[in-house]
Amino acid sequence: MLRTNTCGELRINNVSETVTISGWVQGVRDKGSLLWIDLRDRYGITQITIETEKAAKELIDTARTLGREYVITVTGKVAERYSKSDKIPTGDIEIYPDKITILNAALTPPFTIEDETDGGDDIRMKYRYLDLRRNPVRRNLELRHRMAIETRNYLDKLNFLEVETPVLIKSTPEGARDFVVPSRMNQGEFYALPQSPQTFKQLLMIGGFDRYYQIVKCFRDEDLRADRQPEFTQIDCEMAFVEQEDILNTFEGLVRHLFKTVKGIDIPELSRMTYADAMKFYGNDKPDIRFEMKFVELNDVVKGKGFKVFDDAGLVVGICAKGAAEYSRKQLDELTEFVKRPQVGASGLVYARYNDDGTIKSSVDKFYNEEDLKKWAGAFNAKPGDLLLILAGEENKTRKALSELRLEMGTRLGLRDKNKFSCHWVIDFPLLEWNEEMNRWHAMHHPFTSPKPEDIALIDSNPGTVRANAYDMVINGVEVGGGSIRIFNKQLQSRMFDLLGFTKEDAQAQFGFLMNAFEFGAPPHGGIAFGFDRLCSLFGGADVIRDFIAFPKNNSGRDVMIDSPSIIAQSQLEELGIGLKK
Amino acid sequence: MLRTNTCGELRINNVSETVTISGWVQGVRDKGSLLWIDLRDRYGITQITIETEKAAKELIDTARTLGREYVITVTGKVAERYSKSDKIPTGDIEIYPDKITILNAALTPPFTIEDETDGGDDIRMKYRYLDLRRNPVRRNLELRHRMAIETRNYLDKLNFLEVETPVLIKSTPEGARDFVVPSRMNQGEFYALPQSPQTFKQLLMIGGFDRYYQIVKCFRDEDLRADRQPEFTQIDCEMAFVEQEDILNTFEGLVRHLFKTVKGIDIPELSRMTYADAMKFYGNDKPDIRFEMKFVELNDVVKGKGFKVFDDAGLVVGICAKGAAEYSRKQLDELTEFVKRPQVGASGLVYARYNDDGTIKSSVDKFYNEEDLKKWAGAFNAKPGDLLLILAGEENKTRKALSELRLEMGTRLGLRDKNKFSCHWVIDFPLLEWNEEMNRWHAMHHPFTSPKPEDIALIDSNPGTVRANAYDMVINGVEVGGGSIRIFNKQLQSRMFDLLGFTKEDAQAQFGFLMNAFEFGAPPHGGIAFGFDRLCSLFGGADVIRDFIAFPKNNSGRDVMIDSPSIIAQSQLEELGIGLKK
Repeated sequence: MLRTNTCGELRINNVSETVTISGWVQGVRDKGSLLWIDLRDRYGITQITIETEKAAKELIDTARTLGREYVITVTGKVAERYSKSDKIPTGDIEIYPDKITILNAALTPPFTIEDETDGGDDIRMKYRYLDLRRNPVRRNLELRHRMAIETRNYLDKLNFLEVETPVLIKSTPEGARDFVVPSRMNQGEFYALPQSPQTFKQLLMIGGFDRYYQIVKCFRDEDLRADRQPEFTQIDCEMAFVEQEDILNTFEGLVRHLFKTVKGIDIPELSRMTYADAMKFYGNDKPDIRFEMKFVELNDVVKGKGFKVFDDAGLVVGICAKGAAEYSRKQLDELTEFVKRPQVGASGLVYARYNDDGTIKSSVDKFYNEEDLKKWAGAFNAKPGDLLLILAGEENKTRKALSELRLEMGTRLGLRDKNKFSCHWVIDFPLLEWNEEMNRWHAMHHPFTSPKPEDIALIDSNPGTVRANAYDMVINGVEVGGGSIRIFNKQLQSRMFDLLGFTKEDAQAQFGFLMNAFEFGAPPHGGIAFGFDRLCSLFGGADVIRDFIAFPKNNSGRDVMIDSPSIIAQSQLEELGIGLKK
Repeated sequence: MLRTNTCGELRINNVSETVTISGWVQGVRDKGSLLWIDLRDRYGITQITIETEKAAKELIDTARTLGREYVITVTGKVAERYSKSDKIPTGDIEIYPDKITILNAALTPPFTIEDETDGGDDIRMKYRYLDLRRNPVRRNLELRHRMAIETRNYLDKLNFLEVETPVLIKSTPEGARDFVVPSRMNQGEFYALPQSPQTFKQLLMIGGFDRYYQIVKCFRDEDLRADRQPEFTQIDCEMAFVEQEDILNTFEGLVRHLFKTVKGIDIPELSRMTYADAMKFYGNDKPDIRFEMKFVELNDVVKGKGFKVFDDAGLVVGICAKGAAEYSRKQLDELTEFVKRPQVGASGLVYARYNDDGTIKSSVDKFYNEEDLKKWAGAFNAKPGDLLLILAGEENKTRKALSELRLEMGTRLGLRDKNKFSCHWVIDFPLLEWNEEMNRWHAMHHPFTSPKPEDIALIDSNPGTVRANAYDMVINGVEVGGGSIRIFNKQLQSRMFDLLGFTKEDAQAQFGFLMNAFEFGAPPHGGIAFGFDRLCSLFGGADVIRDFIAFPKNNSGRDVMIDSPSIIAQSQLEELGIGLKK
């Protein structure tokens, strides 16, 4: 080893030991008679001190050539510091070096290697290997490692087996767009990269494996958003001989274990909310319940007073922002602007201030008198000091817009602390949703999701009302995992493919292997998959999953560090039997 | 849960408990008054017993409809068996059922679900989900799970971080053929799937991560052999601030930990052999040293007696097969046939029997008298009862052929017990090998491998003699892992690319990002990668890695179960901007 110790471990009880440490030069301070080097590695920073009047000339010369990020090895004696620092764990000691060896010089890095760097996103992506040296980035990946280890510990103890499923699989048109891989040995044919190991984990259940998991890369060729990557990682799980209750309990246990072991936080048992309630009270199938601020429907209270916007609306619905009655006109204008943004989509905002003196003033006082407004306040169970914010319009659109406004108010009122965690289940999702564009039913979760047994009869008569045994886990308004109890019967699976517009032939060609497998003794089974990148970013108190991926791609799917994707040789194309369209 | 217990856990102390178990019907025996069902799951088999004179008619009727591999749930009382079985751990008890529910029927499986099945390879691959129900296949994957868990435990304790590197990377012409992935967002450009995370793990070292590992899928588009798969798994590792000795110690520790925890075997410290010695004494860079039978060179002993084959040979070399002097003429003919096979490539075999009576008889008695042959025996340190087997010809070819013969003799003499493990290091590999076909130097390990510092001066004068800081771990004659200390200096890396025939422009285009990174403070580093599939198969006492992969591909790279690769839609090709060559 080119070191006896790391730069993070020497303490007062090591004083007078001769040690060797290696690392990167964080900085050099040269005061003439004294010269200090801060040496950094993954574990910390240790101060090297040279008394230039006592030290050998060669040593001093070497020290004076050092620049930032030089890689050096230092051998010397540990001494107690004259003036101690409580800012770093090694602050009680310093090293008086006998020898300094430069292992590698370094050009001046294009941005500072500090917790708060002067480098922008683009330059840090290009020099990702330098960005990785910064504490916040390193800590994110250390957190990710710990999350993976603890996930495996928990599941291993429960007899789950990690089984690797293939990466080169078969393309299917259902779901998102596949990445494909041309086959050289079978020209004209392609593999696809998995969007998830869904069918394989079901086959493992049919194969008797009963408890499976895998922390696994998945792939989607989608246009990227800030929190999407073309390759992402799932904690993918499946169990046989279970009902929904068993899955919820098992994986609630996983997340509580992670909070406990990784963050030292005891979280309470997860509450459960039906999809119907989530939409009714939060306008959102992944509500952030760190704060209350539930929707209150006002159709009965506000209609018939001559205010056309409300009278004509399918739904009038609002929220009560506690303690926000003092909002200024400017703040209220900002909120109005906010709801009118195309991403939110409301046409306007009605508000009512419940003042501390008990009076209520609204933006529609022309139509509603004090008595009317008292009724509003009653509906919200509002108190003096509260602010009522109300939207009106077509039902679904209005709920969606109010959900955005609710989250915005939560943020403004400081109710969305990233270090506070609120986890819950959303259950009883609809099996199907109507796709207007394609004029057909679409599987809300995926085509393998089982309808609730009590709703099966409705499949023929009223498919839109059929509920699924499907569930999402939501933490702080983010869907971190989702799953379902699966169909395990060939006839029902076949009926499902019918409903989704598959011809018999297509269903057989694409999923025949699974439906055939159902005929050879398939057990009841179900599972869940967690978005691991997102789970890590939540645990790390961050919004962007990219910060929790060692080598992420940018929003054009490029790795700007290695400059990929790139052109390939004509000979490679020929071997694969493909050509580029001009 | 659709069970209170598994089919493997009930014992005599559970007697009189009411339990529910679920699983697959292994078999039904109907003796009229008594009817037995063997119910199987991943954990074992439990016997269900029905006394037809006492049981409810409905229960009996259900039981009599059951076929092999039906999935059922049984609730009943645990009872002590009248006639116990010591063949299965649940053999002391049976269950008298109150209720049997058929969860799913099953067609008759196309092969028997038994340890020794009647199904051939092809049918078992097509119905892999049924093959997975067989104990030997399940045990292989359980072993694999345990190996992965223990690998992570060991490395985690040593502060290694598991970091996921990207799967969508950049194609490089060096090494094996890449699988490529057309980019839709960057038309005309391609990603490649990694043959290994080599450059990324080096960048992690430059990024200060100092101890990295990953159990990771890698990809090679090669024509397949029995023990190769287009996608395979590596335990990939890298360390910074280390020398070769540190890597060898750390990963010797890993393998000893795995043997200890997974198989309960204490293996001794690993011996080390130079590449030169491996070739000299075993004709093989991955010698199986479960048995001795070292090569003995005979040029000095055998030449000049008029036997042209030996006189003209570059090398005459043999092995001594202990106790094989009694080999019959037929057996010796078989060996002669063996060495003449094209895969072995010798032109003939000379043998000499050292008989128990002290006489020596050879196949070339015309040229060598008893006294000559005594000298041969002396060179081999042979004893009465031994058989000497000698090959002659061009040096490298002859060593290779004798290596094959040595392994064959080891097998014939029962010296290659799969439950005995012999692990060692082969070190000091040459840096380069000459590629006759391409008329240029080729990196023996890979282009990032560091020459030994003491040999660097030879790079210009005599590149073929430069030794590398490269090492392989060999278990039972199988290379399970290999690695090297890496170049971490831009000039040396650039010189290496020169030697390998890269133009400056090509080197910069393909590996510029790495060479640039070397300029920003790269620490000394090195690593190793283990073939995880192969390591599992060795631990499992098997030859074929396919048995340790849940869903393997066949030798044409096809998954015959899901029928992949397959054609994709014209619209997909168009979106990707590629076309098929007619």
